[in-house]
Amino acid sequence: VIKNIIGTNDLIEFLRGKRATFMLALSNTKTADIEGITQAGIPGKIYLTPTLDSEFLVCGEVRSLESIAETPKGVPTPALITRATHLLKPFSNIELLNLGIKVEPKVEHFNIHNFAITSSNAIDDNANIDSMDVFKKGLDFGQNFECKDDYLILAESVPSGTTTAAATALALGYDCKQMFSSSFKDVPSDIRNKTIEKALLNIKETDDIFSRVSKVSDNMLIFTAGFILGLNNQTKLILAGGTQMACVLLIVNSILKQMQGELETSNIALCTTKWVYEDEKSDIEGLLKLNDLKINAYYADFDFSLSEHPALKLYDEGEAKEGVGAGGALAYALLNGITKEELTKKVESFLS
Amino acid sequence: VIKNIIGTNDLIEFLRGKRATFMLALSNTKTADIEGITQAGIPGKIYLTPTLDSEFLVCGEVRSLESIAETPKGVPTPALITRATHLLKPFSNIELLNLGIKVEPKVEHFNIHNFAITSSNAIDDNANIDSMDVFKKGLDFGQNFECKDDYLILAESVPSGTTTAAATALALGYDCKQMFSSSFKDVPSDIRNKTIEKALLNIKETDDIFSRVSKVSDNMLIFTAGFILGLNNQTKLILAGGTQMACVLLIVNSILKQMQGELETSNIALCTTKWVYEDEKSDIEGLLKLNDLKINAYYADFDFSLSEHPALKLYDEGEAKEGVGAGGALAYALLNGITKEELTKKVESFLS
Repeated sequence: VIKNIIGTNDLIEFLRGKRATFMLALSNTKTADIEGITQAGIPGKIYLTPTLDSEFLVCGEVRSLESIAETPKGVPTPALITRATHLLKPFSNIELLNLGIKVEPKVEHFNIHNFAITSSNAIDDNANIDSMDVFKKGLDFGQNFECKDDYLILAESVPSGTTTAAATALALGYDCKQMFSSSFKDVPSDIRNKTIEKALLNIKETDDIFSRVSKVSDNMLIFTAGFILGLNNQTKLILAGGTQMACVLLIVNSILKQMQGELETSNIALCTTKWVYEDEKSDIEGLLKLNDLKINAYYADFDFSLSEHPALKLYDEGEAKEGVGAGGALAYALLNGITKEELTKKVESFLS
Repeated sequence: VIKNIIGTNDLIEFLRGKRATFMLALSNTKTADIEGITQAGIPGKIYLTPTLDSEFLVCGEVRSLESIAETPKGVPTPALITRATHLLKPFSNIELLNLGIKVEPKVEHFNIHNFAITSSNAIDDNANIDSMDVFKKGLDFGQNFECKDDYLILAESVPSGTTTAAATALALGYDCKQMFSSSFKDVPSDIRNKTIEKALLNIKETDDIFSRVSKVSDNMLIFTAGFILGLNNQTKLILAGGTQMACVLLIVNSILKQMQGELETSNIALCTTKWVYEDEKSDIEGLLKLNDLKINAYYADFDFSLSEHPALKLYDEGEAKEGVGAGGALAYALLNGITKEELTKKVESFLS
């Protein structure tokens, strides 16, 4: 079942049985190198996570390292969930967006869109993103985008992306300090908060939106904001993610307000996991309600209660929540008749 | 699951969830009339097998005879497997290629491409094929081919086709005497080998490629070699077959070498069954490795271990291995989320 966070269920019901392109946005920010800030990957090799996630998603194997990315506690990447969906009910197309990653995925045939964007600096030291350039590339890509299928599911793999998202929303003036999720159960608030606070110290009162995001954001957030504006509601779009995608929508909102522009959003929805929705340390609903734009938002009512596997149990205990479009993928699977049992078994098959 | 024989899995993974046209090449060679050379059909009516296979594939019933083609031992045609796939996850289009059959399938609506090719003579008596004509027709068809779907699965039904394939590869000078499969478990080596030896006696040292294949080959092999060259890697192509399709690729290789030509093959893959891959009396991997062209090759990891049906058990005992694109069809089914259980049940439903 798919449940509403805000809005109505018409859009997601319309997408039942429809064909989807799945697009995965990949980016590295040096913020992820700050010790203890994220557990989305292998310590010392966190930067490889988007590369490994995308290899596993499209080809079922990791090629740029011996084994799949998992956290120090042994939580496997949510890419397992998205891959399981793709095996049970394939996406019609999978494409990758290289938004500045250190190691390009070693895959053939699959379209990797390159935008000549370099990975960004740590936000506590000024991310130093050419935000206007990245934004314009997203805008262009959206304006020229032709969906081969009925709708687009846009997902991300950006280690420490919830930290950059929190800093971004705060830098844009949204009152959302406690609203951001983390891949940790025990959110490393000290490190995260210190990083965010230090990042925000770089912001000057006179900085405009683009100056602000260039200092404290990441490429995925900026590019995707541009992409949504470029797309201009012309393609049905599922933003497959949690608080990061909610932040993208806040960037869009800020830009529109400054420009006194408008955007029809009837074809845009956010779709995340139950783990994000139920997370007590973040508030996806609150983040969406800070937005002046009316965005439908959903979560896939899926957990690993049918599994006995200890690594998957960690999801239900809050150790991992979202990423690689897990929530959107689960919704796609459920919309196409795949059951919780089938999904659970398929994910388990990767771990045995 | 789909497994690699040689190459990488990128192409087959790219085809996951994609739409396919299934094309079945039909041909008769009088080689099949040699007593005991093949069990692909009803004794005395072996020539009907391609006709019956195609009728059953597209319409679910045989029309040019009372019952479906099965071997004297009762092994049902692999058309059952391809039909089961089509019922569980339909091909977007099925088209037939009449490459010289005695009885045209009695079907309406489905596109039967006619090329005015006549069925060929037995190879022990000179197959007597106008090989340049057949090749050019394949080349033309490939050059003008526009795939309506994301990719093409090309399959064959040619009784005694493994014998003509073996003779062809040997006539072209490939060192592959023990590498060819047969529909028999106990390969009737004497009859086969005598036929092949007799066929090769017709080859003169001075014969060029086209003279050689005109004497010892069959229309499907020659036409398909032309088709692949005409297609020129412009359409993603699954060659759905075992040693016969491997032979086609050896013909392509020989022609290219003689012409000092080149062919990009990134979009071509061979896909066969586990029965062919595991067959101890043939060597699909060896045949592919004799080729200078780099071709990805896969097999569908499917068998009838979930079935109790004695006629299907014969497959697992090696009595039938491939044909009517069974391997490619199984891969297509597995790529689209169909399970081994579902496939087994559907095939069983035709036999009860």
